[in-house]
Amino acid sequence: MANKDQNLTLWYDQLLSKAQLVSYGDVKGTNCFLPNSWNLWLQIQRLYNNATALIKLKDKVILKQFIPIEPLPYTVEQVQLPTLSFYSEYQKEKRHVEGFNPELFLIEQIGTKKLHDPLVLRPTSEIAFCNLWKKQSFSYQNLPVIYNQWTCVFRAEKNTRPFLRNSEFYWQETHGLFSDGVNSESAAIAFWKLYQDIIVNQLCIPAFVGLKSPNERFAGAQNTWTVESIMPDGQALQCATSHDLGQTFTKPFGLTFQNQANQQAIPYSFSCGISTRILGALLLTHSDDFGLILPWKVAPIQVKLYLFDKKGDTKTVELAQKVQTLLEQLAIRFQFIKVENQLGKQLGQGEVNGIPFQLIVDNPQTVNIFNRLTRVKTAYSFEQLASRFVELVQQYHQAMYDKAKAVVQQKVVQATTLKQIEQAFNDKKAVLCAVRLTDTLEQQLKERYQVTVRCCLEQLQKPQICPFSGESAQDYVLIARAY
Amino acid sequence: MANKDQNLTLWYDQLLSKAQLVSYGDVKGTNCFLPNSWNLWLQIQRLYNNATALIKLKDKVILKQFIPIEPLPYTVEQVQLPTLSFYSEYQKEKRHVEGFNPELFLIEQIGTKKLHDPLVLRPTSEIAFCNLWKKQSFSYQNLPVIYNQWTCVFRAEKNTRPFLRNSEFYWQETHGLFSDGVNSESAAIAFWKLYQDIIVNQLCIPAFVGLKSPNERFAGAQNTWTVESIMPDGQALQCATSHDLGQTFTKPFGLTFQNQANQQAIPYSFSCGISTRILGALLLTHSDDFGLILPWKVAPIQVKLYLFDKKGDTKTVELAQKVQTLLEQLAIRFQFIKVENQLGKQLGQGEVNGIPFQLIVDNPQTVNIFNRLTRVKTAYSFEQLASRFVELVQQYHQAMYDKAKAVVQQKVVQATTLKQIEQAFNDKKAVLCAVRLTDTLEQQLKERYQVTVRCCLEQLQKPQICPFSGESAQDYVLIARAY
Repeated sequence: MANKDQNLTLWYDQLLSKAQLVSYGDVKGTNCFLPNSWNLWLQIQRLYNNATALIKLKDKVILKQFIPIEPLPYTVEQVQLPTLSFYSEYQKEKRHVEGFNPELFLIEQIGTKKLHDPLVLRPTSEIAFCNLWKKQSFSYQNLPVIYNQWTCVFRAEKNTRPFLRNSEFYWQETHGLFSDGVNSESAAIAFWKLYQDIIVNQLCIPAFVGLKSPNERFAGAQNTWTVESIMPDGQALQCATSHDLGQTFTKPFGLTFQNQANQQAIPYSFSCGISTRILGALLLTHSDDFGLILPWKVAPIQVKLYLFDKKGDTKTVELAQKVQTLLEQLAIRFQFIKVENQLGKQLGQGEVNGIPFQLIVDNPQTVNIFNRLTRVKTAYSFEQLASRFVELVQQYHQAMYDKAKAVVQQKVVQATTLKQIEQAFNDKKAVLCAVRLTDTLEQQLKERYQVTVRCCLEQLQKPQICPFSGESAQDYVLIARAY
Repeated sequence: MANKDQNLTLWYDQLLSKAQLVSYGDVKGTNCFLPNSWNLWLQIQRLYNNATALIKLKDKVILKQFIPIEPLPYTVEQVQLPTLSFYSEYQKEKRHVEGFNPELFLIEQIGTKKLHDPLVLRPTSEIAFCNLWKKQSFSYQNLPVIYNQWTCVFRAEKNTRPFLRNSEFYWQETHGLFSDGVNSESAAIAFWKLYQDIIVNQLCIPAFVGLKSPNERFAGAQNTWTVESIMPDGQALQCATSHDLGQTFTKPFGLTFQNQANQQAIPYSFSCGISTRILGALLLTHSDDFGLILPWKVAPIQVKLYLFDKKGDTKTVELAQKVQTLLEQLAIRFQFIKVENQLGKQLGQGEVNGIPFQLIVDNPQTVNIFNRLTRVKTAYSFEQLASRFVELVQQYHQAMYDKAKAVVQQKVVQATTLKQIEQAFNDKKAVLCAVRLTDTLEQQLKERYQVTVRCCLEQLQKPQICPFSGESAQDYVLIARAY
């Protein structure tokens, strides 16, 4: 494989192929998700679903205590909405149609029959949800209603790369309907925090979080909150967003509800989503020149246990069985494989595939553990293993985050002067600084440096001087080139 | 609600709306799956996934013993393939394109840009899987490869009804690649048997199983095995199918593998699927004039436990908590709700939504159980409940199947003469009989009686006389009108 530090692009393409993650679809920008990537996505689905489930699950996973994910105080229900809608419906919200128009897939024919009103493949589902809600009747008493769907969306893209930018990609989109704007804003913020938890605490990806500038908001949103991460090449990757949509969609689509005063009023809505792009962030952040490295919490197979015993030694077999029982008790997702030959080849494939721990039992006394992150093999007695396994997992998890954090820190410069900023951009790094956030500044950044304001992290109490305009600067922002 | 026996069509539409199962999409033949139907589909996904999982799960559900579902001896891996492919690719398999051509959604434009080669939305994914496999290299040692995806497909339909016939519908499709035709046929049969298990043993839907006639096969299949059920109106509903595709697709798509003699050979393939149409079968078979009735195994919420206690009696609260603990121990999917008022309204909604058991604790001595199937409310002491709950569930399950079976038996006539057959068709019933299965007969059945041969159940050892042609009849078939 190519060297990750020297040629990230080539390394990424080789990783996709070597770890059997995707295969290219025939149509530009489409991908086949092979088991190694789709199972990862299913694990991320599980994290989100557990936190938002109608029946709050009592997670029996013993190892969960060190990576908590709190259930949300909202009830989210799973639905599935059509892929197809009428193009004419898109005309109803001006900014929305402008935002998506060039990327829309248009269906003008079925079999040999021409259509009068073309159909479009959803680029996102605000319109489908509004059209559904229009047919239901709501009072303030049965709001909010929060629906989620795991699905795909379609946006024809020019420059495509698996996971990072696709014409058909997979995501989860949650849409909520509220009786007032305060509640819809609170929900947008609550889901944004859930994404932070998933991305930072579960996937070990360091993140910068804040509000998008008006120019960078979702087409139709009043406010967009984002979780941004910095990849090893200094570019920012938008990992998840949450939008307070106010009445932008509910008004033109004619939605109403009965308010407390018994009158018809216009409801408020929000939407949010995390997409398969997070798999791109995961790969770029954690993997190395030897293949995939997976966070413990989402590794589809967390442990592979090999019994390598040609002689058929009863005691060796017994030890392997004891380890198997231990893994079951710890509620670990593991595979138990009896290997006759070519153990090295199997271990090698396990390494490329990013199995966190590979355990080898080939004698009656010790268990060898190969740690994918450190690439160190260590021998443990069964008693040591039983008492220390939880700790090993905790260390793995923490070390993964620390390693990623160290890389991000090298790629982000805290700057106060224009010189520092320009130097950072020259070095292909991202910048944290106080600016006066204006349309002019954003335009200038794009044209002069090909960078964008990724998010506003906070409003400074004590204004500084904007390095670009020399004016008073209160917006503390992340500026970077973006995927 | 309309009377199910008197007006099944009206009753079905009212059920869809009253039990909040679907809402109609804007585009003809598309639906919004609301939580009450989508959660059901997710439960069916769980049944299939558990039986085919890579890591064979040890199902901790204590109640599983009376409804076994055996893991398959195949490893199925989850993937996700693109929705879009090129229309030109469809030309490669003649029967396939003929089978689907009139129903294809064609994309000829993206944004304002016209496409040279139109794109199509998949009506099924044989082509996508062959195009994926073409890029991978296989030897006899790493075959079979079996992939599954949970996804949607698109077929523009003229007469549409939610679940039963849709232009966009959801399904699971499993596709496998094999080194020889015997193995691909065995797999097609094994998955057909898995569907039988899901449909009959888990969903309690009585079924007829057998081979499709050459005219009724999947476009491109060598053999299609089907699971057919008879609805209360005497019409047959195709619940699941499995196809031995031989080399029909692998040949024109140029697939090869290295065989044991170290030569390049053409592999064999199979595909199979169960769709959201099974939800239609579920509704039509089990539900009644009071709403939905759900099989225990797939009810998203199996039990609702209400604590209805205005006085705040400690002993009543304690009893409810003891029941809650019991339900947890039994690994039942339940909701625990404290009700202050309008208990009747809640129970009514629970009935419409088909919750199998609703448990009411409103005094310190007894638990009232409302059984959705029998609509009988019975009081139990906690000790009775604890010792008898598993039995109650078993009875519920068996009674549901028996009830459905009795309805089917009324709608299916075993016939030997043309007079009996014509009488049955006049009475809108299905027919089981021995025939000489020919193209002429199938044509005649369609034209004269608007019925089709749904499947051939067996080849009789001892031939009979075909009531239609008077010739020797060895095919014992199910004939019916179909959804």
